[in-house]
Order: sequence, then structure tokens, then C-alpha cells
Amino acid sequence: MNDPLLDPDRLFSANPREREIARTLYAGIRALPIISPHGHTDPSWFANNDYFPDATKLLLIPDHYLFRMLYSQGIELEELGVPRVDGGAVETDMRKIWHILADHYHLFRGTPSSLWMDHVFHEVFGLEQAFSPDTADEFFDQISASLQTEAYRPRALLDRFNIELIATTEGAVDDLPHHRAMAGTAMSGRVITTFRPDDVVDPEREDFSENLVLLADLTGEDTETWAGYLDALRARRAVFREFGATATDHGHPTAATADLDRAACEQLFARCRAGDVTAEEAELFRAQMLTEMAGMSLEDGMVMQIHAGARRNVNPEVFRKFGRDKGADIPSPTNFIDGLAALLHRYGNESALEIILFTLDETTYARELAPLAGHFPCLRLGPPWWFHDSPEGMLRYRQQVTETAGFYNTAGFNDDTRAFLSIPARHDVARRMDARFLASLVAEGRLRMGDAEALIQDLTGNLVRQAYRLSPA
Amino acid sequence: MNDPLLDPDRLFSANPREREIARTLYAGIRALPIISPHGHTDPSWFANNDYFPDATKLLLIPDHYLFRMLYSQGIELEELGVPRVDGGAVETDMRKIWHILADHYHLFRGTPSSLWMDHVFHEVFGLEQAFSPDTADEFFDQISASLQTEAYRPRALLDRFNIELIATTEGAVDDLPHHRAMAGTAMSGRVITTFRPDDVVDPEREDFSENLVLLADLTGEDTETWAGYLDALRARRAVFREFGATATDHGHPTAATADLDRAACEQLFARCRAGDVTAEEAELFRAQMLTEMAGMSLEDGMVMQIHAGARRNVNPEVFRKFGRDKGADIPSPTNFIDGLAALLHRYGNESALEIILFTLDETTYARELAPLAGHFPCLRLGPPWWFHDSPEGMLRYRQQVTETAGFYNTAGFNDDTRAFLSIPARHDVARRMDARFLASLVAEGRLRMGDAEALIQDLTGNLVRQAYRLSPA
Amino acid sequence: MNDPLLDPDRLFSANPREREIARTLYAGIRALPIISPHGHTDPSWFANNDYFPDATKLLLIPDHYLFRMLYSQGIELEELGVPRVDGGAVETDMRKIWHILADHYHLFRGTPSSLWMDHVFHEVFGLEQAFSPDTADEFFDQISASLQTEAYRPRALLDRFNIELIATTEGAVDDLPHHRAMAGTAMSGRVITTFRPDDVVDPEREDFSENLVLLADLTGEDTETWAGYLDALRARRAVFREFGATATDHGHPTAATADLDRAACEQLFARCRAGDVTAEEAELFRAQMLTEMAGMSLEDGMVMQIHAGARRNVNPEVFRKFGRDKGADIPSPTNFIDGLAALLHRYGNESALEIILFTLDETTYARELAPLAGHFPCLRLGPPWWFHDSPEGMLRYRQQVTETAGFYNTAGFNDDTRAFLSIPARHDVARRMDARFLASLVAEGRLRMGDAEALIQDLTGNLVRQAYRLSPA
Repeated sequence: MNDPLLDPDRLFSANPREREIARTLYAGIRALPIISPHGHTDPSWFANNDYFPDATKLLLIPDHYLFRMLYSQGIELEELGVPRVDGGAVETDMRKIWHILADHYHLFRGTPSSLWMDHVFHEVFGLEQAFSPDTADEFFDQISASLQTEAYRPRALLDRFNIELIATTEGAVDDLPHHRAMAGTAMSGRVITTFRPDDVVDPEREDFSENLVLLADLTGEDTETWAGYLDALRARRAVFREFGATATDHGHPTAATADLDRAACEQLFARCRAGDVTAEEAELFRAQMLTEMAGMSLEDGMVMQIHAGARRNVNPEVFRKFGRDKGADIPSPTNFIDGLAALLHRYGNESALEIILFTLDETTYARELAPLAGHFPCLRLGPPWWFHDSPEGMLRYRQQVTETAGFYNTAGFNDDTRAFLSIPARHDVARRMDARFLASLVAEGRLRMGDAEALIQDLTGNLVRQAYRLSPA
Repeated sequence: MNDPLLDPDRLFSANPREREIARTLYAGIRALPIISPHGHTDPSWFANNDYFPDATKLLLIPDHYLFRMLYSQGIELEELGVPRVDGGAVETDMRKIWHILADHYHLFRGTPSSLWMDHVFHEVFGLEQAFSPDTADEFFDQISASLQTEAYRPRALLDRFNIELIATTEGAVDDLPHHRAMAGTAMSGRVITTFRPDDVVDPEREDFSENLVLLADLTGEDTETWAGYLDALRARRAVFREFGATATDHGHPTAATADLDRAACEQLFARCRAGDVTAEEAELFRAQMLTEMAGMSLEDGMVMQIHAGARRNVNPEVFRKFGRDKGADIPSPTNFIDGLAALLHRYGNESALEIILFTLDETTYARELAPLAGHFPCLRLGPPWWFHDSPEGMLRYRQQVTETAGFYNTAGFNDDTRAFLSIPARHDVARRMDARFLASLVAEGRLRMGDAEALIQDLTGNLVRQAYRLSPA
Repeated sequence: MNDPLLDPDRLFSANPREREIARTLYAGIRALPIISPHGHTDPSWFANNDYFPDATKLLLIPDHYLFRMLYSQGIELEELGVPRVDGGAVETDMRKIWHILADHYHLFRGTPSSLWMDHVFHEVFGLEQAFSPDTADEFFDQISASLQTEAYRPRALLDRFNIELIATTEGAVDDLPHHRAMAGTAMSGRVITTFRPDDVVDPEREDFSENLVLLADLTGEDTETWAGYLDALRARRAVFREFGATATDHGHPTAATADLDRAACEQLFARCRAGDVTAEEAELFRAQMLTEMAGMSLEDGMVMQIHAGARRNVNPEVFRKFGRDKGADIPSPTNFIDGLAALLHRYGNESALEIILFTLDETTYARELAPLAGHFPCLRLGPPWWFHDSPEGMLRYRQQVTETAGFYNTAGFNDDTRAFLSIPARHDVARRMDARFLASLVAEGRLRMGDAEALIQDLTGNLVRQAYRLSPA
């Protein structure tokens, strides 16, 4: 059979009536600008506008979706050129690494990685064959050559991808050099930062004490006291807001929050600073800090994102050799109802507060998250995250969230990616899956077509702008 | 597009073959009488047969599905006329409140509330436009006027809705005045009660001791002793049976059961009476009481319903201001396998006992509930409950329960509602979803059409009658 | 309607395009030989090649899927002829028992048991009517008579079913008499064993100490010491390998693993031998033994299967009267991320090790298992197991596993059955469901047809051979 490289109706239901409705809905939003309010692209790309290197360095080596799958099948990360923490030798022949990907591309059948990669190959680079061992060299050459042209420099791609706004994510002790460099340029307000204080909030990080010192240096506050530490955080939040931040982000292993009194906070902080905490105390400190951050969000208006439930670096050997973000982060059962209780008791009824919740534990969609978001004015649900940012994951999310939380307690799509070239592909998948889901409701008499047409506009643009407090279109 | 207000094929699959089969199956049961063996309608409606008030007071103010969603979007409950515990001022302009609903009706897109409300508007009140800010006044006027006519009085609606039997739910210290008033009338045997002893079984309720006194007054038993307390419960059960009860109902935060010896029960009960229990002891007392109730069900033949896993009143501020049942009840992870062990070890093999299990934790459908119901003779699974009483919830239930428990270990549909006017809508959704599910099995060669035709009759009527020990049709 | 007894398109989507693609994919593998790398058939059947007895003794009495459902509806196991542990009287009139099944066959509507039984009736025995009380005698007679013919003896059925290889499962203290008897015959290499040491690894089994003595007798090792015990296990593994075993199997109540030091192991083992362990210590011992078994698998190359999460014999009365495997095993929530941590820290990066994971807790598919298998080189996911070995279970598995783990970290199908005559039915269901799932991906533009054609070959044969280290076709 002669399948198209990218089926123009991909991801729509095979049912002709649903497909026809989905096409109509999709046509109404397909060309809307991309708003990317949460992600991990490198701000230096947009600040410096340097040419990207070759296909392998851009598309494979930084993409943990790709190399974790290859690793799971017995390919060493060294063979894939993933840099070692100790600077030890890894493969440097980028074409050879590219061939490993081509030789194993069948591993990605049925995964979102292949949807995204095929989109990049065929739409972004205009390649008109299937990626395979036979075409690997041609792909490598053509992609690498394209990347050395004006049209593929970061800012040109921002335009070509029709990205209206993109948020990067920086730690609390990041001095934001690239965002500073963009201030006053055309990038200002288009590339914004996000405040992610995990580096100074998680006492189990190996660099926690060191980061407290940096935090003091950056702010002039005394981070040896609880009050000074909180003021330092306030000061950093203010700086991030200068560089466009409208949101904070919190990546925590659980959804636990706490609401201790001041004396207990001071004692706990002192033990954290001293590096003298048990796992339970570390958890309690992170839990308290979520509530503190919610309080600061009420003060300064920043939207709070909580990404809960990833167990990080569960493969100690890979962590030791290659560091963080190497595909060894695994979801864990996450309890939002007990976890969020302290924060919600304190701030749950504040409609001026906005907290966007993300989960890796899909069992919480219908059981906890939709009922919570369908009651508490401060809560909104983020889109399906990470492993669940996929066609099936999106269907499960809409099917399990909508009936209790509705559409209007959700936040539209996030790509949450460091893979810049895949951003159009990811948003396109989300738009198609929304069109598909709405089409099924219309075809089954559960939603009127006019309402579906309004909804797809809201899901694609308006809800994102509202959720992240961005200017209206 | 010009969608019908209520698609005659709504909720059926868009696949033409499945749709055709579903239509046939639905046609066979669409007109069957409604049996409503579990719910929360107010028995005074049927006893007094008074006219209902206006649209807002009937349809919005008592419906926590509606006002929780509005509250989640920042509308205060006071603005919606929800009465305060302290009698403080709330909005009294019913038309104004009705407009708030109309202005925010888009929040309910894709939710069962909009399916139910649209059914009430178009089928019960014959309104022929879509509900919107533009039609809000007309809807308010026409509904409110209709409610003052004979045809919309409670008993007339019972007839019009073709409700053969409806069970209300009363607490153990309720003297059943409305059911007493109906004794000897045409309502007798048609409106029956259900025994729900949570008020005298949960030592964490604020009114627990007070209720024990009431229980003693009502029964003449000494509720200061364990034996007297149990006898008082027996006595109340007997009274409820006089007023038609065939079932008890137990709303517990977990599925825990216990089987303590008599001395331990006496000690625990004494501490509960004294108000001197930890959370663990309170849980243990509730757990023991489920086993006691199972024992009494074996004595008196009442079916036992266990609704497990709702964490109640998780928003303390809303509870303080507005009391119970205000949309702040959230499901929690529920463990049936450990929870039910004590009760099942004691009574699990009694086929004369019948326990109907309900869950808010869908992960238990395939993992615990279907395997348990597919083995223990005393267990049967109730229909999808509350947040899961919805098209997607019903699909997940059938998909996850049927292959292990079959259809015949389930109990047909419950509407479980206080929203009387939505009862036909809710049963219609269940009938359509059953037709749809069976149609998919037939279309995929997994079930013969003749078996599907028998099944839809059983699901709609026979299984309900059996499960609740009602007279056959 | 006049439905066929077995719809030739059964289990395919009702959507015509998906159905057409599924037919094409299925046609490509429908006739491939069956490889059954894990199951519980009785090796004496193949060793002795005796005639099977009658319909009831072959098809009903040993099948816990069937009798648990009948038991759940109030039929006593004695009435079904299930043998009592105490040798007490049970029904012996096989025709009468057969009629009970026929009278209650409607209980199985929509369950995989009816799919399997109908396949056995119509395909294996050529019966051309529906099974019902009216046809029960004819079915009993025809099946029972057929079983006394050459064509229905075990080895003839192996040929007729096109079973290339079948693995049975034996305990560590089984001397493998039937496999010994088959050595040097045509059955050798076609009927292989699997090493399942639960009987000497679980200190909570009533026969644990007794089994340690048998283990010593069989191996000449001193099983009173930790070192001798481990050597005895090594010795047994070697014997099992002689009789074709390429895999071990471990049925544990949880996924817990441990990595204690030698002294702690010695102490714990001594307490286990003395029968002096708490439930926590017993769990710790089983946990340690999984890690020990992984180490031995690295030594001898046997694939390790972990079947985690069945709570066994939860009905004490049924266990006391009828023993194990009587339908009273219930899934429980299973935590793989914490459970497997110790083993994975020790051996997780060994690509020479292969561990196949099975779960009864479907919530772990997307949350834990797919992410783990999509990273750790030693892990692979087994097919949906037991209660989930069903059309809906298979769909959920593919939908929840594929996007993160891909297809190539899975292991193809296992029938895992003792019901020999249902093996073709079970593999046929799996093949049809794979064809259906792949067809939906193709129809939705998520997979190219050529890739689907390659995949269905891999899923049916190649992945099974790789996963179980069997010779290529």
C-alpha cells in the first residue's frame, strides 16, 4: 500500500461522519498562532539566533523520548553520544549515531515520537520519503544542510511556526542572561521566562545549599533565615516578572502541601539548610513551600503550575554517569485529595489565585482532579503531561475530565518540550485530537455543532490566554 | 448548522451498524416503567403533593452538580441563593439567579448536567429553543408558570414519568412522617423509604450523641449499651420495612469493615458515645457497623447498599457557611479487597445476603470489584455512581466490569438523585448507553442479537427488581 | 436475527475501513503456528496421551473462570463436582452438572469465557447449534464421544491446533516425571517445562518446610543453610533447563524486591525455616528471592517472569473446603516503582537479563510499567493477564502501553491456561485484537500499512520467540 507520509486526516476517527465534523472543526483553528505557555526550550537560541548544528545534535541527543527507547533495547547511551557527567568518551560521529536511530526507527511505531519526527521530517524539512536505514544519509545531509540556512535559524523558525508566544523555564538562581539580552528586542514579550524554584525549594537536591548561597548573592537577602529566604524568593519572582513571567512552575515528587506555623517553618528550614533532614522532613519542606508559593502568587498574580508525581532519576547508574533528564524518571501513584488539602484549606476559595495541576497518574483524572477543579475556584487542570502527551493520552484525559470539570476548568495545550522543531507537530496533534473528541460528541448528539465551533476556538487560544494570564489575541 | 434540541439518536455510536442495532434495542425498552430503587427525592413532595415553586428554586438551588461548577468559576454561592447555615443574606431574586445560570450555561458543555437539563427543558417543559441568555426569561417564565399547574404537581409527574416505584432515603432517627402520611394512599408501595443509618453509625458526625438520644427516644431501647444500641437499630429497621424499605444504605468514607469480638465492640462503642475517639477508632467503629448491618440484613432480608469512598466536606469554609452536600465531596482511592475482608470472611458465602457495592474509584472496577462480585455469592455491583453517572462513566463501567463479573452480577440503574425532574433524563441516558454498549458487542460478533434483546430487558427491569427484592413486573 | 455461531469478523471494529484492514492483517497471521510459552496444561496429558474423559470433567470442573461465575450466583461448588479437600461427597453425575452450566450459560454473555467456549463447541467439536438447555444433552454426548476418538487425544490435538511449542509450569520440588517420560520422544522440545519456585520461596505456604526437605532430597544440597538453599535452587534450575525450560515464573502477591546483605539473608532464611516470621518478614524474604532469581537468571540465561499482585485464597471457607485455584484469587493494587527498585538498582542495566512483567492492576500500565519498560534494558511487558486476557483488556493494554513502551518492549501473547481445548480460541482472540488495534492505527493515519503488516508478524511470532529465547522459526 502507498500510504501518504502524513495523512491529511491523521488522528481523526475513521467514522466518516465524525471525520467530516472533525475536519470542519480543525479547519477553523489549524492556522491559529501557537501559544506555548510552558516548555523547556533554550532561551539562548532566541537570544543568540545561532544556526542549529546537525540533525543528530538537534533532534536526537537532547531528546530523552528517543534515547530512552533505544536504551531500553540495549543500546548504550555512549553509543548515542549522550554526554557523560565525567566528560568521558562518547560517540562523536553524528552520522553513525543517526544511523542507529534509522536502524531502530521501528521501535517508535505507534508512539508519539514517530508522529512528531515524521512531522519534522516531512513538514519542517520537506523530506518526501519515509525515514529508514536506506534514506538515513539523505535525511542527515539534507537536514544538516538546511540548518545552516537563514530559514532554519531560531527566530526564523519562530516566525515560520507562527509562534505568538513561547515561555522558557528557568531556575530561581538563574540570572536570566538570555532574557536580559532579548530585552528591548523583537523577542521581548514573545519569548518569556517562567519561575521554577525547585533548585532552592528541594532540600534533597545535591546543590541545595550552594543554591541558597547563590540566591543570597543574587538578591542581597539573608537566606540563612526563613524570613530572608522568603524575601529572596519574592525578589526573584519580581525579576522574573520583569522578563515576562506570568507563571511559576513546581516539579514535585508528590502533590503534598503543608501549612505549618512560622516557628515550625523556621525550625524545618534551619534543618534543611544544615543538610540534616530525613526524607519525610524534606517532603514536608517541599510541601510547605507549595503553600508559601501559593501565598506569593496571591501577592504578585503569578499563575502557579504544579507538576506532581514524577519519581526522578530512578536509575542510579544512569544518573551517576549521565545526570538528570535521561529517561529514568517514572510516574508514581499520586494522591491529590490528601496532598492538596493543606493548601486548599488555606487558599482554596480565593478566586484571585490560579493553580494549574498536572499529573502523571491518570487514575486521578476522574477520581480526584476533575471533582477538585469542578469545585475549587483556584484550580484548573493542565493538559495531559509527558508520557500522556499523546493521542491516546489526550483521549483518556478528555473522556475522564470533561464530564465533571467541563472544558472551562482546563487550560488548553502545553507542549512542555525542549525539542523546538517538534513544537508545531505537538500542537497539531493536540488540535487534531480536540477536533476529534468534539466531533465524537457532535456526532453522538451530545454537543451542538455551534458549541463545538466555539469550544475549539477556546481550547486552542482563549483558555490558554486566560489560564496563563496572557493578553487576549 | 441546525442541530435538533434533542437528537433522537443521541448517545448511540456514530457507526451506522451499531446505531441501527442500538435503535432496535432501545425501542424495546424505551417505554418501560421507571424503577428508581435508590435516590434522594423529598418524600414530602409525594405526601403533600404541593406545587413546586419556580424554575430556580426547583432546578438550580438544590442541584450541587450545577452550583459547584458555577462556584468553580468564581461565582459565590450567595449569588446563587444557596442558603447559609447562619441564615445570612443570600440572593433572593430568582430571575436574577436564573440569568447567572444562563450566562454560564457554556460551562456545562459536554457534561451530563447539560444532557439532563436539556431533557428537562425540551421534554418535560416542551421548550423549543436552546437555553441561552436570550431565552432565559422565557424559560424562567414558562417553567415557573407550568409548575403552578396540575400537570406539574409531584404525583402527576410520577404518573407522567411512568415511575412505577421510587425509593427515598431517610436517616435512622427520622420518624418517617411523610411515609406515614402516605400509608394507605395510592402512594403507599409506590414511594418507599430506605434505611440509612449513617447518622447513628458515624461517631465523627457533629450530631452523633444527639442522634443516639433520639434513637433511644424513638425505640425505647437503651442506646447507652452496645446491646441496646443494636436492638434500637433492629427496631428502626423494622419500622422502615413497614414503610416499604427493602434496602439499607451506607455512605462511608472507605470500604473498611471489621469483625471485633463483643467485648471490643462494647469498649469501642463506649468511647464513641463519650466522644473520645481518634480518627482510627471512628473508622474502626464504622467498619464494625457495616458487618453488624450485614448480620441484620441476614436476619431481616434487607438488601445492603454500600456507597464507599466519598471524602465529605473537604472545603471547610464552604461547610461552615453552607453545610453538607455543597459540591465539596471528593472521591478518594478506595481499597475494597482489604476493606471488605472482615465482612466477607464472616458472611461472604451467604447467598441469602445481598450487598450492592458502589464506588467512586473507577480503578477498582476491573481490579477488585468485578473479581469479587464474580466470586462471592453475596455481592452485586451497583451502577456507576455520582461523578460517573454519565455517558463516559457508563461506558467505562460496562467495559471494565462485564468481562469478569458478567451482566448478572450487576444491579441495573439507580438515578440516586434529589433532582426529581431529571429522573426521566437520567434513566433515558442509562437505557441509551446500555443499548449502545450491547450494540457494539453485537456489531463486533461478541454477542448474539437475541441475547442482547434479552439483556436489555434484564438490565432495565428484571435485574433492578431482583437486586432490590422488589415484586416482579 | 440469525447470527452466525462464530462471526468470521468477530472482534474487529464495526467501522468498515478498520474492519477491512483488520481482515487483511489477520489473514496474514491467522494460520501461523501457536507458540504457548507460558501456561498450566498438565504435562501428563502429553506424556501419556490418554483419552480425555467427558465434557464436564474436561471443560467445566477444572475451569475456575466457569465455576466461580456459577458460584457467584449461588450455586454450590459441590453441585458442580469440584472435589473437596476432605474427599467429601460432591456431585458425580456429569450430565447433571453439564445441565447446570447450560441452564446458566446466559451468565457468561459478554465474557471471554463464552467466546472461548463457543469456539471450542463450534470449531473444535463442530457443533452447529447454540449451547442452551435444549442442546445440552446433544453437546454432552457428542463432546464426550469425540473425546474417545483418536483425533481428540492430546497429541493429536497438539497437531490439529498447530501448536509448535507449549510450556507447562512445574514447582521447584517437582521431579518432572512427565517431562522425563517425554525425553527422546517427538514431544521433547515441543512440550517444555518452566521453573516456578513459589513452593520453596514463599514462607507463608503451609508446605514450605516440607518443600525445603524435598528440595534437599532432590538435590543433595543442605537446604538448612542459605548457601545450600541457593545452590539447591541452582541445581533445580539446571534440571529444568534439561527439560527445555527457557524461563522461570514467579507468582508473588506484590512486586516487592529486596537486596539484603548476606548476613541479613542468612538470618531471615533461618527464621523462615523455623516458621517464625511475621507477614512483613515473609514479604521481605519473597522480595529478596526475586533479586536472587534475577541473579541466577544472569548466570544461566533463563528468562524471568514475574506475575505480581494476585491476592490468593481470599475466601477462607472455600480454601478450607476446596483448596487453591478456586476462583477466590483477587487482584490488588500493585506498586511496581517502589517494588522493583531494589532489583533494578542491582541488575536493571544488564541487557543480558530479561524480566517479563505481568500485572493485574491495569492502572500500572501507563503510569509505571510502560515507562519502566521503555527505559530499563532488562524489562519487557507480558501480555494482559488472567482477568484482563479479554478483548477489552487487550485494548486497554495496547492503548495504555504502546505510546510509551512501543510494541517492541512487549512479549507477544501468553494463553496462561490449564484449559487445553481453549488454547486455539485464546490465541485467536489475541490475534484478532492485535489486528483490530493495528487497523485502527492505520485507519487513523498513525501507522503505515507496511509497518502494520510487519508488526502483526512480530507480535504473533517473533516477539514471543525473542522474549522467551526460543529458536527462531
